[in-house]
Amino acid sequence: MKALIVLANEKKEGSFCHALADMAKRTLRDAGYEVILRDLYAEHFDPILTHEELSLSGDEVSGELRAEIEQILATDLFVVIHPNWWGMPPAILKGWIDRCIRQGFCYAFTADGPVRMLEGRKAIVFTTGNTPQEIEVSVNHDPLDNLWKNIVFKTVGIDDCVRMNIASLIMSTPQQREQWLLEAKAELEKLL
Amino acid sequence: MKALIVLANEKKEGSFCHALADMAKRTLRDAGYEVILRDLYAEHFDPILTHEELSLSGDEVSGELRAEIEQILATDLFVVIHPNWWGMPPAILKGWIDRCIRQGFCYAFTADGPVRMLEGRKAIVFTTGNTPQEIEVSVNHDPLDNLWKNIVFKTVGIDDCVRMNIASLIMSTPQQREQWLLEAKAELEKLL
Repeated sequence: MKALIVLANEKKEGSFCHALADMAKRTLRDAGYEVILRDLYAEHFDPILTHEELSLSGDEVSGELRAEIEQILATDLFVVIHPNWWGMPPAILKGWIDRCIRQGFCYAFTADGPVRMLEGRKAIVFTTGNTPQEIEVSVNHDPLDNLWKNIVFKTVGIDDCVRMNIASLIMSTPQQREQWLLEAKAELEKLL
Repeated sequence: MKALIVLANEKKEGSFCHALADMAKRTLRDAGYEVILRDLYAEHFDPILTHEELSLSGDEVSGELRAEIEQILATDLFVVIHPNWWGMPPAILKGWIDRCIRQGFCYAFTADGPVRMLEGRKAIVFTTGNTPQEIEVSVNHDPLDNLWKNIVFKTVGIDDCVRMNIASLIMSTPQQREQWLLEAKAELEKLL
């Protein structure tokens, strides 16, 4: 089984997102998964979907982009980790979605209707934020829940998407953060 | 009065987003506005908010980023134009939000609560998509409406944000698109 962890945090190391990624990597390896960890900031991922790239037919998609897509197609379990910036992922991760969750490979529209090409996979999304969860829901309408579950993963056929929002990070103690890591691990283990 | 048009479309020219931007520029100039049009793709805007940039104190923000922020602070009317990609703006525009709608300049959190520093300005957002509007609302929960009105512009004090979604572009005729441009112009003129 293969797992792909996609991490987008502006720090080089030491963030709570990094701690979540390390926990996920260890947990998945212990469970026998082959794990790839993509730290989009560390690798200077280019988030810009250009007109040229968007216009390529399926056969023409090559090189780095084809490798990105094949990595996705080979994945059984997706783990996405990022801070909540304006109810959305950081731009670097938004661009990973724009470029790599590509029509014709991950989903398609045909005369018979939409085709969801990643059915049977699973996904878990960990987001971190400073807005307390009850305000994120009542005032902001928790946009990340809709974006990841209903817009991104449902489109490609993954109805089985779990999301855990961790907040408020800025107001938390080290003990609280340790507890969140345990809870995150437990959520991940439910999918294994 | 000053208007800032922020355009994010992957094409160099000829897109319906470009037609909307041209219409907005002409309409605003005719109404006496000083207009700046930012075509983020054309200028290869860098959407990556780095840890270093995020960590700068207010006094330290300089150069290109300070110019970006001052452009925003000088704006009376914002016009945002982009396609709907996964219920969000393209990454290049997401990064413009991440970097330029900056805490300490556009909004702040103080001991007395949040401060919204762009009060009194206006905003209009034109989005384009291929999903028919009724499906965008019923199935996708129209995330861009929440993101722009409730998350981005409300945070900085602009409660007076109008959004017009134009869909389905892929199924439209030239006559329909001409009609949409007229409707978009009418929506913009209501704000003048």
